[in-house]
Amino acid sequence: MTEETHLVLFMPSGKRGRFASGTPVIEAARELGVYVESVCGGRATCGRCQVSVQEGQFAKHGITSSNDHISPIGPKEERYYRVRGLPEGRRLSCSATIEGDLVIDIPQDTVVNAQVVRKESDGRVIERDPAVHMCYVEVEEPDMEKPLGDLDRLLVALEKDWKLKRIEVDFHLLPRVQQILRKGEWKVTAAIHKDEADDRPRLVALYPGLKNEAYGIACDIGSTTIAMHLSSLLSGRTLASSGTSNPQIRFGEDLMSRVSYVMMNPDGREAMTNAVRDAINGLVDKVAEQGGIDRHDILDAVFVGNPVMHHLFLGIDPTELGGAPFALAASGAQHLKAEEIGIHLNKGARVYMLPCIAGHVGADAAAATLTEGPHRQDEQMLLVDIGTNAEIVLGNSARTVAASSPTGPAFEGAEISSGQRAAPGAIERVRIDRDTLEPRFRVIGVEQWSDEPGFAEAAEKTGITGICGSAIIEVVAEMFLAGIISEDGVVDGAMAARSPRILENGRTFSYLLHDGAQKITVTQNDVRAIQLAKAALYAGVKLLMDKLGIDHVDRIGLAGAFGTFIDPKYAMVLGLIPDCDLEKVKAVGNAAGTGARMCLLNRGYRREIEETVRKIEKIETALEPKFQEHFVYAMAMPNKVDSFPNLEKVIALPEKKVLADAGGDGGRRRRRSRE
Amino acid sequence: MTEETHLVLFMPSGKRGRFASGTPVIEAARELGVYVESVCGGRATCGRCQVSVQEGQFAKHGITSSNDHISPIGPKEERYYRVRGLPEGRRLSCSATIEGDLVIDIPQDTVVNAQVVRKESDGRVIERDPAVHMCYVEVEEPDMEKPLGDLDRLLVALEKDWKLKRIEVDFHLLPRVQQILRKGEWKVTAAIHKDEADDRPRLVALYPGLKNEAYGIACDIGSTTIAMHLSSLLSGRTLASSGTSNPQIRFGEDLMSRVSYVMMNPDGREAMTNAVRDAINGLVDKVAEQGGIDRHDILDAVFVGNPVMHHLFLGIDPTELGGAPFALAASGAQHLKAEEIGIHLNKGARVYMLPCIAGHVGADAAAATLTEGPHRQDEQMLLVDIGTNAEIVLGNSARTVAASSPTGPAFEGAEISSGQRAAPGAIERVRIDRDTLEPRFRVIGVEQWSDEPGFAEAAEKTGITGICGSAIIEVVAEMFLAGIISEDGVVDGAMAARSPRILENGRTFSYLLHDGAQKITVTQNDVRAIQLAKAALYAGVKLLMDKLGIDHVDRIGLAGAFGTFIDPKYAMVLGLIPDCDLEKVKAVGNAAGTGARMCLLNRGYRREIEETVRKIEKIETALEPKFQEHFVYAMAMPNKVDSFPNLEKVIALPEKKVLADAGGDGGRRRRRSRE
Repeated sequence: MTEETHLVLFMPSGKRGRFASGTPVIEAARELGVYVESVCGGRATCGRCQVSVQEGQFAKHGITSSNDHISPIGPKEERYYRVRGLPEGRRLSCSATIEGDLVIDIPQDTVVNAQVVRKESDGRVIERDPAVHMCYVEVEEPDMEKPLGDLDRLLVALEKDWKLKRIEVDFHLLPRVQQILRKGEWKVTAAIHKDEADDRPRLVALYPGLKNEAYGIACDIGSTTIAMHLSSLLSGRTLASSGTSNPQIRFGEDLMSRVSYVMMNPDGREAMTNAVRDAINGLVDKVAEQGGIDRHDILDAVFVGNPVMHHLFLGIDPTELGGAPFALAASGAQHLKAEEIGIHLNKGARVYMLPCIAGHVGADAAAATLTEGPHRQDEQMLLVDIGTNAEIVLGNSARTVAASSPTGPAFEGAEISSGQRAAPGAIERVRIDRDTLEPRFRVIGVEQWSDEPGFAEAAEKTGITGICGSAIIEVVAEMFLAGIISEDGVVDGAMAARSPRILENGRTFSYLLHDGAQKITVTQNDVRAIQLAKAALYAGVKLLMDKLGIDHVDRIGLAGAFGTFIDPKYAMVLGLIPDCDLEKVKAVGNAAGTGARMCLLNRGYRREIEETVRKIEKIETALEPKFQEHFVYAMAMPNKVDSFPNLEKVIALPEKKVLADAGGDGGRRRRRSRE
Repeated sequence: MTEETHLVLFMPSGKRGRFASGTPVIEAARELGVYVESVCGGRATCGRCQVSVQEGQFAKHGITSSNDHISPIGPKEERYYRVRGLPEGRRLSCSATIEGDLVIDIPQDTVVNAQVVRKESDGRVIERDPAVHMCYVEVEEPDMEKPLGDLDRLLVALEKDWKLKRIEVDFHLLPRVQQILRKGEWKVTAAIHKDEADDRPRLVALYPGLKNEAYGIACDIGSTTIAMHLSSLLSGRTLASSGTSNPQIRFGEDLMSRVSYVMMNPDGREAMTNAVRDAINGLVDKVAEQGGIDRHDILDAVFVGNPVMHHLFLGIDPTELGGAPFALAASGAQHLKAEEIGIHLNKGARVYMLPCIAGHVGADAAAATLTEGPHRQDEQMLLVDIGTNAEIVLGNSARTVAASSPTGPAFEGAEISSGQRAAPGAIERVRIDRDTLEPRFRVIGVEQWSDEPGFAEAAEKTGITGICGSAIIEVVAEMFLAGIISEDGVVDGAMAARSPRILENGRTFSYLLHDGAQKITVTQNDVRAIQLAKAALYAGVKLLMDKLGIDHVDRIGLAGAFGTFIDPKYAMVLGLIPDCDLEKVKAVGNAAGTGARMCLLNRGYRREIEETVRKIEKIETALEPKFQEHFVYAMAMPNKVDSFPNLEKVIALPEKKVLADAGGDGGRRRRRSRE
């Protein structure tokens, strides 16, 4: 009898094994390495360990029902059903025991259940293994004959029930431990933090009774925007997402002006540190309210940001990042307490910051790398994040290289005569008729294109005030496609004969995009600024391709806001990016934020990106003689030496087709998310 | 040639081995497990590794001089000699290499040299192995081609030169690391903290250049007095010692009245926590000034105290200690940062607190146990610390037991009609003539005994105001020896016929000790109070002896102020302590402070006392039926059931001899230290 074993198959992993009658399902799962969450430690009270038992699956083996293959519902489980309820067919795996062959589903829904994997909105699967675990225990009451302290008896219980040895205790709990134990009548839930394999487990928070939830935040600190996600550490579910503009903008629009601010103002660093921390605390309030939780239940946090944001957030003077050799104070991953940087979460909440790759390739680029995973695939993948500097990562599982390239702020609309930030009234899409050279454009805040009925009325509200970053790319590319500018970027004065929109400005010419209350023109200088920026980016990419000895890339990911709004076609027309199948060029806008969330939900990803960053070869463009050479050739559109077979196809498309592709739902969706 | 090895003998350890020509002496020492300090890592700049090379020691082997057995002084060593100087015959073991047979002395002086052992003023040898080590490194300068952060390159250097892997970094250093590295021109000294074997090393402080010192404090927080020692962590030398009264006294004289204060006052705990921390910060100032150091160079601290002091110092409400089951919030050793409890040392300074043994047997008793080491010896040793509760530890290397006994405050002079605290004017020693029943006494602040010329004049300044704790023991014991009180503690009214000093008070009698401006008498109630207190103590000791199945103890250590001032003879006359060879009864007054210092200088002692406390069997006297029985018998003087062979000898001594023994230099020295 005791020798009898049953075949148990866990889905969706497909892991299987044979187990004796009476084995709790959760034990079988753990033995096979199938992760099933549990907070209550097998007391049938937290409900985190529920599974689905498939019926009739084994019919082909002559079994028609598995009802008698699993134990009947016992009193503890019955109580849970009565009090909390469970979906049809669910059992608590801590209570149900194996009594015959079984197929067991680990449910993928994320609300109540402890899940193995979680599908993100972008289809991404994040396997869960957070740094914080909730462990319910029942502690022995004090006894004069065994005068171990209350805390010490708690630690004994945690070792006994959860196999946690040599736990370290956050000091802030010491004055509170007796009260919490008594409030919970010696039943408490301990939040245990353990990040790296050789860390000792650490008691960071303690709750009376069963505490069946724990939350974490993932935050991407951009120079312009700060984005935050709130997730359940127990289910992986994202409860809320929010963003805010980075208040450091008032100290300087771009990174280098913020570094200058620090250099010029004795308390500049502190002011900017406080500004970004305050904004983050505000965001925590927002996501906590949105998610309907108490911010003190947030126990873990992951932050990413470019090197300057990284340093200012941590309270480090970024001055060294302002000049060669661009020394980071610290490049490795950082572990700290939220309290140490004035972020108000649970008093024991921990913070993890991803490593920076180099002085201008930050933790945000590392997070994007983790998300897109060039190091996990055989295809050569190019990841580009464009800001004042372009952060470039290129490679595959065999080898990955990274660099930053000084594109300057032209892509962000600075240094452009009619440039402006993406805001209502800014032109965001442009088309130029190849014959008449007449433009059609779209304005942020207006539904219609400029040649559609109702545009003029709608545009009265917003005005037409300038050109934003994505449209600058488009207008220069369209000018090139319409023959207004040459391959070398010269606005062709001869075209003035064909259209009154070609204006003479002394020795150069410009293109009149809009003749309204404000004249919006694209000048020869504007074209030059874009040429310089795109040449810098391309030269950086080309340098990395040289390093890898490759002449094409298989995939391109465009990260950040610029990557989200730019049309890859025009990027290729201008030669911002190397030739690539357009199907394989995609915006990976929130890749940094997703990478942060991955590290929040699974500490394995922390080790993965730390290891990857260690392996990435860092190329300093300023030290490479070839960079200048590439740069010169890359000034042309698309450039003078490389072939762009995919681009030929794009240019060959009828103008209408290009328009239809760009102006469909995709465009509208993007615009809405920008507003 | 390369095969040739030489015999090297290290003194005083006697460790020896054979080494090849050219082996640096420090390497040979380390290979043999001879601890030689080094801060500079072999650069001949810190001077911590110096050794003495004996000359002519090997003459019997046919060698007349060892000059050519050690390398000549090279340029680096020569520079050290020139700049810093060295005693005759000293060499820097990092630079001097073995070239022949050698006898090498590891010097025991503690000023400059890295020592192996350190003799304390009490003759104690503390082998040194502190939790903090100073590690000098030269860090690679930043390089655009290798964009590792400044901190990360520091960690690389620490791993390379000091074999420190996976160092954790205190967050407070992050914003300062770049400035410190540049100030030191990429040469810095890292303070590395590592306490337990499985701890990761932690960078807690960083100094530009060579930092050739680091300090620690050891502090005993008594209910009445706080005592602190400042030691060099590099040499073990005690630089300064100081003490102050515990300002919590204003909230309650004894422990239980302080616990009551917390229970009655909502902010009582906080007020007492602040009071003791402020006092400790004040003491840090004092020892730092005395030692001529900056308090920010203090990197480690060890604290001991009884459970109530322990809790209040850590900010824990001691209410639970006020009633059964006397639950400690935490009994195990505590590791924290000085900053977390508002003790202002270096920002990265760590704090270690010894474990408590039980609810009334604290970290001070643990420290005293560590110092006296019953667990290290075969003899049965009794350790007693008397306060409102007596903390009692008894045992040997085979087995140790501990208990506390409710002696009440009588021994401290409370509940005694003429009792007072030890202060000028208090009677501190008493003798009674066996025939005339006339007393002679000594007063704190007065040099003479009361029957010596000049006493009256000198006593006018101080007054004669009461009896302090140690004298209460003596006067009751002397009353017993003179026959004024019976074995059962009854003041014999019949003696009134022999002396006018026997006064009648209704149904009982009292003894007039001094008939001055203030009448100082010892009443029947006073004798009863002492009887109750000593019976409680003795019953506790007896209970522990029962547990161990022994009927005598080999050694007795009397800890704390009471133990320092009490005369063991009288303690035995009264039957406070069991019979023991008086030569083996000693005051171990500062045993707790010494234990703290041991843990400061050698983390091995931390593990030893943690392990010992785990093993000590805790006996709760209140739960033992035999306690009451022992208590009743112990009311008699010395008591009714045990034999006191050693006591017989004491009582048999002529009164003059007893006096001479007690009134010599020892008495005066003790008195001075009390003032």
